[in-house]
Amino acid sequence: MTLAARVLRQLAERGETLAVAESLTGGLVAAALTSVPGASRSFRGSVTAYATALKHELLGVDRALLAERGAVDAEVARGMAAGVRRALGADWGISTTGVAGPEPQDGQPVGTVYVAVAGPGGLGKVTALRLNGERTDIRRESVLGVLELLSGELAENAGAQDTEQNGGN
Amino acid sequence: MTLAARVLRQLAERGETLAVAESLTGGLVAAALTSVPGASRSFRGSVTAYATALKHELLGVDRALLAERGAVDAEVARGMAAGVRRALGADWGISTTGVAGPEPQDGQPVGTVYVAVAGPGGLGKVTALRLNGERTDIRRESVLGVLELLSGELAENAGAQDTEQNGGN
Repeated sequence: MTLAARVLRQLAERGETLAVAESLTGGLVAAALTSVPGASRSFRGSVTAYATALKHELLGVDRALLAERGAVDAEVARGMAAGVRRALGADWGISTTGVAGPEPQDGQPVGTVYVAVAGPGGLGKVTALRLNGERTDIRRESVLGVLELLSGELAENAGAQDTEQNGGN
Repeated sequence: MTLAARVLRQLAERGETLAVAESLTGGLVAAALTSVPGASRSFRGSVTAYATALKHELLGVDRALLAERGAVDAEVARGMAAGVRRALGADWGISTTGVAGPEPQDGQPVGTVYVAVAGPGGLGKVTALRLNGERTDIRRESVLGVLELLSGELAENAGAQDTEQNGGN
């Protein structure tokens, strides 16, 4: 079972949905999820905000933050995940932003990547990755990084969610 | 040179931008474009509207049309292309909608796919594809189908655009 299939199974078991915001991965996270038959059960959709302005316009990332720090930033990643979760009406949002190369961007070296997750009840986390290799490798590793982050959060919060469900029944 | 690279070169030569709306391809069109270094010159971003409601909410596809015909429809494809062009502020919008399988959807058999392009000045076109093979093949062929459609439109309208530019200078 691929990591994408595992994440989708975790979500389906909880009856929860997912939305994705991508920058450097440019569609690869969504493509990995939708390669799994039946993905539509949990995957609502994604936004690739490749142009920096779209991170504000479509995902609501703070314009001043983008102007000050550029697109490759932990807080921007956090804002993208929270923004896509809200915009697409999903339980969970995940995001990627970083420098795939070949050129540095916004003063950040190639391989600088941030992945984030935003969940119900204000749950959230950002991870900084320092990746090596070519553009293709950096993009592929970023996809795995953000799916691992989500899978971990889902596993960590399984207990709390079970309790909530039990409490509600 | 890949088809994605060719399309990006055609766009860059015209100084024009592109936005992508995806359903069955689920991120693969955006991923193909962003695999090309320097894609940000012309590629603004994409929306994967996998859940049918998002085709209305994010892309402005008519709700009654979606209710009446389902998501796999030529007019829906046309509306997605026009909608993403508008929402992302691009010169060109392209879209995919269809049935990748393994199950039929909205009464349409696996392999039924519509790809569309919307351009400046009301330019637009929809193509129906009837594809064979597995989910992976159908998704891959749909990516090529929509990029070929755009590449053809750009080539066809090269003359008109040149004239316009000359007239403006």
